Amino acid sequence: MLNVIFFVAITAEAMTAALAAGRRKMDWFGVCLIACVTALGGGTTRDIFLDHYPLYWVGNPLILLLVCGAALFTIAIARVAYHLRWLFLLLDALGLVVFTIIGCNVAIEIGAHPLIVIVSGMVTGIVGGILRDVLCNDIPLVFRGELYATVSIVTAVIYFFGLTAGFHPDLVIPVAIAVGFPLRVLALVKKWQMPKFVYEKDL
Amino acid sequence: MLNVIFFVAITAEAMTAALAAGRRKMDWFGVCLIACVTALGGGTTRDIFLDHYPLYWVGNPLILLLVCGAALFTIAIARVAYHLRWLFLLLDALGLVVFTIIGCNVAIEIGAHPLIVIVSGMVTGIVGGILRDVLCNDIPLVFRGELYATVSIVTAVIYFFGLTAGFHPDLVIPVAIAVGFPLRVLALVKKWQMPKFVYEKDL
Amino acid sequence: MLNVIFFVAITAEAMTAALAAGRRKMDWFGVCLIACVTALGGGTTRDIFLDHYPLYWVGNPLILLLVCGAALFTIAIARVAYHLRWLFLLLDALGLVVFTIIGCNVAIEIGAHPLIVIVSGMVTGIVGGILRDVLCNDIPLVFRGELYATVSIVTAVIYFFGLTAGFHPDLVIPVAIAVGFPLRVLALVKKWQMPKFVYEKDL
Repeated sequence: MLNVIFFVAITAEAMTAALAAGRRKMDWFGVCLIACVTALGGGTTRDIFLDHYPLYWVGNPLILLLVCGAALFTIAIARVAYHLRWLFLLLDALGLVVFTIIGCNVAIEIGAHPLIVIVSGMVTGIVGGILRDVLCNDIPLVFRGELYATVSIVTAVIYFFGLTAGFHPDLVIPVAIAVGFPLRVLALVKKWQMPKFVYEKDL
Repeated sequence: MLNVIFFVAITAEAMTAALAAGRRKMDWFGVCLIACVTALGGGTTRDIFLDHYPLYWVGNPLILLLVCGAALFTIAIARVAYHLRWLFLLLDALGLVVFTIIGCNVAIEIGAHPLIVIVSGMVTGIVGGILRDVLCNDIPLVFRGELYATVSIVTAVIYFFGLTAGFHPDLVIPVAIAVGFPLRVLALVKKWQMPKFVYEKDL
Repeated sequence: MLNVIFFVAITAEAMTAALAAGRRKMDWFGVCLIACVTALGGGTTRDIFLDHYPLYWVGNPLILLLVCGAALFTIAIARVAYHLRWLFLLLDALGLVVFTIIGCNVAIEIGAHPLIVIVSGMVTGIVGGILRDVLCNDIPLVFRGELYATVSIVTAVIYFFGLTAGFHPDLVIPVAIAVGFPLRVLALVKKWQMPKFVYEKDL
């Protein structure tokens, strides 16, 4: 179940990344690379931080074909992509939550400290988007966007403490998704944002 | 002693990073993340380069709370932060020197080549600031600033060759700090810079 | 033979990177650092992805001196560098192909999946240039340039399938170079580009 959502989420992240690359007028190769970095960058960073080898796409290289295929498919359907943007955003929100849960799982498996479990979930959920924005030469949206990282943290906390409290994953996973996913969608719709820190002076 | 300065330096780096994030109007989460990347990025990069696991903040996750706490505290005191900017810059200079020494130590412990010891010190000292500037969408200051990297190299060279010459760390560490710290402060005050390479033509 | 070309290519990459840094008016240290990141970043990223330690420049730290020496030499001869720009571009093209072959070799040695072999070659060939552009605050050229990544992929595919088909490396390496190198040079001369994906709407 989590695996199915995982592949849906990877595909969704690849497709929204392809549209971001298209806004920068990148060539087809650039589109595929941005898609790979966005869809796989979070898990890769987590695996490097935790010394968790082989990286999951090195162990399952067909994921690379899935991501590049999704990116090229996005180019093909770009004309209708605009009308599907809400679908993309919904799948992207689902992906954020699922990536976070998977990231927590990896850290739990290697017996990491609770704080590291939360961080591992968050890194898996948000680093792909940060790398995408850096490569597109933007200030990462996640630093200013609608509760993106907050949703990841909330999901990770619910998931981890749910497991710690002794509940079965089959119960905790749906609960974590049922909180994180609508929270992100609501934040998008209502344009909820974290308070900003504005400091105008030079140091 | 080095440990105490290390925590002071981490805190100082987190606070100056928070001000940089505030200049970019990031939200509170972005401020914390920029603080973590700046304060911990150098040591993390060094540990990855040297295959030195677990990463030090994975092994001591409370450091993450210290860094985020320092970042949020900076938001709270932002009104007076401007008047403390010299204190921040002094602590940041101290941090550069101490991070460098700690970076050298890690490489020495695993028996690395002298050149790698110097590079390890330098990476620990300066990479955090480079990552901060990339995430804030600037050309990294360290490539154009006041002897930042040079101070790190000088400190690393003194420290490594002091140890190699047989002196006790209790002597070499204060000497390295006593050279590196005022060198950086003087460079800031006098606006000393490395010569620039200006090449106007396209390749 | 491949080793000789490897060192020529590293030097060429360091020199073109130094010119890029000069266009950004970086100081001498920044020039050396950009040269190191560009010349060594691809191989470093590959080694981290494949858990292939020690990193090759950690094992052979004199490479760092070669790269920094080449960068400083470029500053010294900057006045004539403009007249040598075609030589640089030729050596850079050769470097792309050779880096790719070396990257494939590393992945083959550790018994990686064919797709990972291709990716390993490509990462080794192109990531250095991507990191250079990110640090210089540009959208990476490779996402919009003249078949840069495509040349790397073509070279990797020829090399890997040549070996798989049972041919001797002494035959396959020259063939891969003989296809990849002129392809890149032709793409530069004729300004061949991959088709671009242009998507004007906001998501």
